[in-house]
Amino acid sequence: MSQAGIESEKIIRRKGDGELEYQPDDLTIEEPLEIRIGRRTVATTMRTPGQDDELAAGFLLSEGIVRSAEDIVKISRPRNARNRDNIIAVGLAKGINVATTLAKRFGTITSSCGICGRESIAAARQNTPPVESRPDVRMTVETLLTLPERLRTHQGDFARTGGIHAAAVFQIDGTLKVVREDIGRHNAVDKVIGRMLLDRYLPLNRHALLVSGRASFEIVQKALAAGIPIVASVSAPSNLAVNFCRESNQTLIGFLRPPSFNLYSHVERVILGRPNNG
Amino acid sequence: MSQAGIESEKIIRRKGDGELEYQPDDLTIEEPLEIRIGRRTVATTMRTPGQDDELAAGFLLSEGIVRSAEDIVKISRPRNARNRDNIIAVGLAKGINVATTLAKRFGTITSSCGICGRESIAAARQNTPPVESRPDVRMTVETLLTLPERLRTHQGDFARTGGIHAAAVFQIDGTLKVVREDIGRHNAVDKVIGRMLLDRYLPLNRHALLVSGRASFEIVQKALAAGIPIVASVSAPSNLAVNFCRESNQTLIGFLRPPSFNLYSHVERVILGRPNNG
Repeated sequence: MSQAGIESEKIIRRKGDGELEYQPDDLTIEEPLEIRIGRRTVATTMRTPGQDDELAAGFLLSEGIVRSAEDIVKISRPRNARNRDNIIAVGLAKGINVATTLAKRFGTITSSCGICGRESIAAARQNTPPVESRPDVRMTVETLLTLPERLRTHQGDFARTGGIHAAAVFQIDGTLKVVREDIGRHNAVDKVIGRMLLDRYLPLNRHALLVSGRASFEIVQKALAAGIPIVASVSAPSNLAVNFCRESNQTLIGFLRPPSFNLYSHVERVILGRPNNG
Repeated sequence: MSQAGIESEKIIRRKGDGELEYQPDDLTIEEPLEIRIGRRTVATTMRTPGQDDELAAGFLLSEGIVRSAEDIVKISRPRNARNRDNIIAVGLAKGINVATTLAKRFGTITSSCGICGRESIAAARQNTPPVESRPDVRMTVETLLTLPERLRTHQGDFARTGGIHAAAVFQIDGTLKVVREDIGRHNAVDKVIGRMLLDRYLPLNRHALLVSGRASFEIVQKALAAGIPIVASVSAPSNLAVNFCRESNQTLIGFLRPPSFNLYSHVERVILGRPNNG
């Protein structure tokens, strides 16, 4: 393994001209991560190793268990455990009632009376108020159109595997704050918001989240948990993500493929200019 | 809504020339589905509505809870439940011990001693033996190269949303058996193998699975549960998927983008020809 997150293997490649080649190929590493609160397992996710502390912090934020860096006292590997590189244990500040939060959240989602999309939104929003409307939090089209290329250039060598998702947080003036990659698109988002949480930047109310994949319900919900008013995806959103963003006062941008994009909600945060007035 | 699985919304589109247009956009529908065994909730997944019976059957097969159509007595919506369109209840044949299977499977995955990728493979393979080696189960390169285009043409109007994953099962002679789409890539695979299970085609030991997304651990594990010897992806596999397929005697093909592709494991099932002998 020449780089964290990548493993090189010899494979057979059929080239465009039909010739076969035995050549090295870079594979994204996928390993399970067990997230614990103290000694209690709260989740296991298939992830690309690296930044497990950020992943755990972002996950706990998304789940409504923590709200700020102060809620987290310690993040560490357990001692003496087998496979300790695939376990991350979070110590929470006193007074945080995990049992109630987990029951409330997972209890709603898996309640035995069935839920619909509308209720999924309501359940997720129990944790988090809508984003504030602030007239100074707006992004120009010019800035927006630069984001995908800047995400790509910061993905680095990792991008060459083709099997990895990326997420990035930018300030609304276009300043890149953090980029993370993972085989799971949810994990990439958890890592970026986890990093920002640990660095005490929350709420990210003057920021935008860009994801390399689609914008589904869970992606926009994670963005809301971090207070992010603008979510952009290079691909398609789901109808539930659009409905969520309308209610949570988040701006949702899809198919961000310069020079084009789609605006699905709260268009007032994008300074569109007046192309017909030129 | 003009078609199952799609919802049309008016959105703002910025076109390539900078002009803005207020136009309709087709969004993939994302709604939660609660899967029950009898009255007990065993999973909730965010899915595109449609073929919920197949999704449930495929999920239970992947989890090792059912092994054949005979294990399923009934699949239905619960009576009198709220949001019954988002609930599917499976009735199992007598003698199937769900509790033990669930405990064994989820117990392994979420055990409090941590697991590694190697153990994830071992745990998944507890349910299912490796695929048999049969010298007559081989696919020609010519057939293999036709699969992605045939998947695309059968995706139909749905493909226009850009926000949907597809999976298909083919016979090794290239005959298309079933194509399904879903916002979740795991769900699309559960639907195709669920359909084949319900139609009593299992084990699919003369078949190939093609997926529109990446080939991760869970995708190849689901294929194994259905007995599928050849798994092809238009995108990248993870290292864990490659290791899994090597152990489970499955052929794994990645970056299937005609005329090129990569072969990661058990290359003997692809009749490569001898381009140097021409």
